[in-house]
Amino acid sequence: MEEWTFPVQYDEEYLPDPESPYWFEQRETMDPQERDAAVLERIREVMRYAYDNSSFYKNKYDEADVNPDDITSFEAFEQVPVITKEEMRTSQTEHPPFGDYVCVPSSEIHHIHGTSGTTGTPTAFSIGRGDWAAIANNHARILWGMGLRPGDGVFVSAIFSLYLGSWGAMAGAERLRCQVFPFGAGAGGGMTARAVQWLARCRPRGFYATPSYALRLAEVAQEEKIDPKEFGLDVMFFSGEPGASVPSVRKQIEDAFGATVIDTGTMAEMTPFMSAAASAGTPEGMLLWQDIVWHEVCDPETFRTVPYGEEGTPVYTHLERTSQPMIRLASNDLTRWVMEDNPCGRTYPRLPEGVYGRIDDMFQVRGENVYPTEIDNYLRTVEGYGGEHRVIVSRSGSMDELLVKVECGRSETDGFEKEVASGLQNVLGLRPAIEVVEVNTFDRSDHKSRRVTDEREHTQRGSG
Amino acid sequence: MEEWTFPVQYDEEYLPDPESPYWFEQRETMDPQERDAAVLERIREVMRYAYDNSSFYKNKYDEADVNPDDITSFEAFEQVPVITKEEMRTSQTEHPPFGDYVCVPSSEIHHIHGTSGTTGTPTAFSIGRGDWAAIANNHARILWGMGLRPGDGVFVSAIFSLYLGSWGAMAGAERLRCQVFPFGAGAGGGMTARAVQWLARCRPRGFYATPSYALRLAEVAQEEKIDPKEFGLDVMFFSGEPGASVPSVRKQIEDAFGATVIDTGTMAEMTPFMSAAASAGTPEGMLLWQDIVWHEVCDPETFRTVPYGEEGTPVYTHLERTSQPMIRLASNDLTRWVMEDNPCGRTYPRLPEGVYGRIDDMFQVRGENVYPTEIDNYLRTVEGYGGEHRVIVSRSGSMDELLVKVECGRSETDGFEKEVASGLQNVLGLRPAIEVVEVNTFDRSDHKSRRVTDEREHTQRGSG
Repeated sequence: MEEWTFPVQYDEEYLPDPESPYWFEQRETMDPQERDAAVLERIREVMRYAYDNSSFYKNKYDEADVNPDDITSFEAFEQVPVITKEEMRTSQTEHPPFGDYVCVPSSEIHHIHGTSGTTGTPTAFSIGRGDWAAIANNHARILWGMGLRPGDGVFVSAIFSLYLGSWGAMAGAERLRCQVFPFGAGAGGGMTARAVQWLARCRPRGFYATPSYALRLAEVAQEEKIDPKEFGLDVMFFSGEPGASVPSVRKQIEDAFGATVIDTGTMAEMTPFMSAAASAGTPEGMLLWQDIVWHEVCDPETFRTVPYGEEGTPVYTHLERTSQPMIRLASNDLTRWVMEDNPCGRTYPRLPEGVYGRIDDMFQVRGENVYPTEIDNYLRTVEGYGGEHRVIVSRSGSMDELLVKVECGRSETDGFEKEVASGLQNVLGLRPAIEVVEVNTFDRSDHKSRRVTDEREHTQRGSG
Repeated sequence: MEEWTFPVQYDEEYLPDPESPYWFEQRETMDPQERDAAVLERIREVMRYAYDNSSFYKNKYDEADVNPDDITSFEAFEQVPVITKEEMRTSQTEHPPFGDYVCVPSSEIHHIHGTSGTTGTPTAFSIGRGDWAAIANNHARILWGMGLRPGDGVFVSAIFSLYLGSWGAMAGAERLRCQVFPFGAGAGGGMTARAVQWLARCRPRGFYATPSYALRLAEVAQEEKIDPKEFGLDVMFFSGEPGASVPSVRKQIEDAFGATVIDTGTMAEMTPFMSAAASAGTPEGMLLWQDIVWHEVCDPETFRTVPYGEEGTPVYTHLERTSQPMIRLASNDLTRWVMEDNPCGRTYPRLPEGVYGRIDDMFQVRGENVYPTEIDNYLRTVEGYGGEHRVIVSRSGSMDELLVKVECGRSETDGFEKEVASGLQNVLGLRPAIEVVEVNTFDRSDHKSRRVTDEREHTQRGSG
């Protein structure tokens, strides 16, 4: 297969035939069973490398009686214990600052990023120089698949800081020889209005942000009397939130900007996080580019893969990272995978609805599983919806209460309230209380929206 | 000389002898007259290149009857008309979006940045792929001169967006093989407090920001009960504001962090903007690395150089840029240059007080030239100064009034007011009105401080 070595060393001058929809045609279109056989060998190499170069993996595998050389089948691999985020935090506390799963010497570390949570101890990511180049090559390959080409402008409208999304988008666009406009986001003080001005002036073909931010940008453009379609965007790709696979959010973005919406993204820890990404020929859901990162969709209790067609939680394994290789990282996300003929010709499995929830975002109310994205998805179909809402879960005695505060742009609110109450009951299987509020009551997020407050005490799920 | 070609193509694997204080020893320590002779040849090359590859330079030089091949002396070069920012804005308006002074094809453009002003039309910078690599190499060379070495952590605490300072610092640190922590700044919501936590945790050797932001960071650290000295910073380098050459600001930063303070920076248009920068051995003021960018200090009317020892306005000429080469760009800044034996052994001229003002920041009150940095500089020496101030210039009848609103942390304010009024009179040569206000009355800037309001109508100086 093209450039299939470990550690990988990509040819930095390589570009595909401009007419080809593929960056590495063979790897992307080959018989999946043959590809999987090569991946299995690679997995063994990565496990051996991690075992030999980090006390984290050595201790973990010794304790579980796992010998990397014994992983000669995917069945064996599925019995390798998963890594949890909690283990990574513990490792960083015990081996500050970067933990004992870093497999390269300090001199190889190129960039430090991290989780951006405001509470608790954040996790640091230390990314090697060679890994950064490989990430750029992989993301360039996936951006090529979206239809972006050398010389295209790519506007990156997400904060450049701890958050890896913007950096990963930029690195890929740079390697693809695009004109990168690393605008950033989040500094307040009219920064979004300035983004509107620069987009209207420079008219890039490509655009990266979180879905919420794209919607916010469309609102600000309209306030500035500029139709977002005038930006002339062709390809808008997203990560950081599930929105780009939520049909109503997709449609809203497509309608506002007149561009193709592409969902991407696994986890920051897994960068190249675009290893799950749609393509120009298969724009719905996300393809699992199995030769970049190995994606399993697993039962959240046993961490064995579920059959195609079924729902489970993604578990990810790096095939190229040397600095912090993640081997069976448990995501806690929820998805469903299928194996079908993809219109783009790539022979990868696909997540038709993207990654649509998190095990720990999902909450139970009166025994029903509630996914916040389902509420969002439904509200965006309602005529007169004001654009934001909040969900409050509380307990009154032994009874769970679900309250949804909804912005309403209609002058007459009674009908709106009734429609929403009954619509949500259909979607959720239980009747929430609805409180109608005015448009712009809630903050528009410049980054990931956080809409759910759970006021009940609750116990943490065990899987990490 | 080492790697002295045009267009330049640096050896990306090169690193100096670890014991050497120099990156390119010969270029940095050679006889300055010999170096200048080589620079003059290079200037002719760059002018010929710009003339042949852009209608902007062709038209400008044809109009002024300048033939690049005739520039065989610096005397001839000093008669080449300067470029003004106004000309660049006009060029971008007439040739959107990037102007007709871009000398490379669109496919060579790697990054788009721009001025971040909130009023008026911003100027876009389009930077070529080869130029970006050359910028990184030049900045790495200057960071090496500051004492940073491969493997050192470098925390970049300025916004990553249009502003080029953070990107230039990062590119240099990456090329030097440092561990770069591109934290950014400016997103509000506790981002500075998080920077404090990450600095305390990762303890990098190097740090980049604007001087105001470093002072803000020290304040926030103290609020968080962390002594900024615990970050263990060794080298703090700055650009974006004159503060790092203002003795009182330098001292405040040095005292707070216990690190060496290094001033750098010409103009964003001139990136590699660190071509004016101090070194570990010559930490005061800024050396003019004349073989990276050609710096002239000129009479602001005639644009002929002033003798060493005298004050003038910097005029800059790129020696390596191919995408937007600036040839005699008028800065509108103010400085004084000297040619002395530098303790670090580099044979460059030096700006002993850095770049301390702008022609257009300087204002006249009752016939006296007032530089805002002089006010800042003085106030920081006053016991009990609350950390911020504002300057308001107004006209009452035919009389100019200068009002300084000063934050005061003393419980007794009368003595403070008298001391400041008399101290400022000594510094400025005129007596301002003083209004004492409480600490934290004024916004702490997360970026460049803007402290002066001139309420008089005033005419613009002609030089652009």
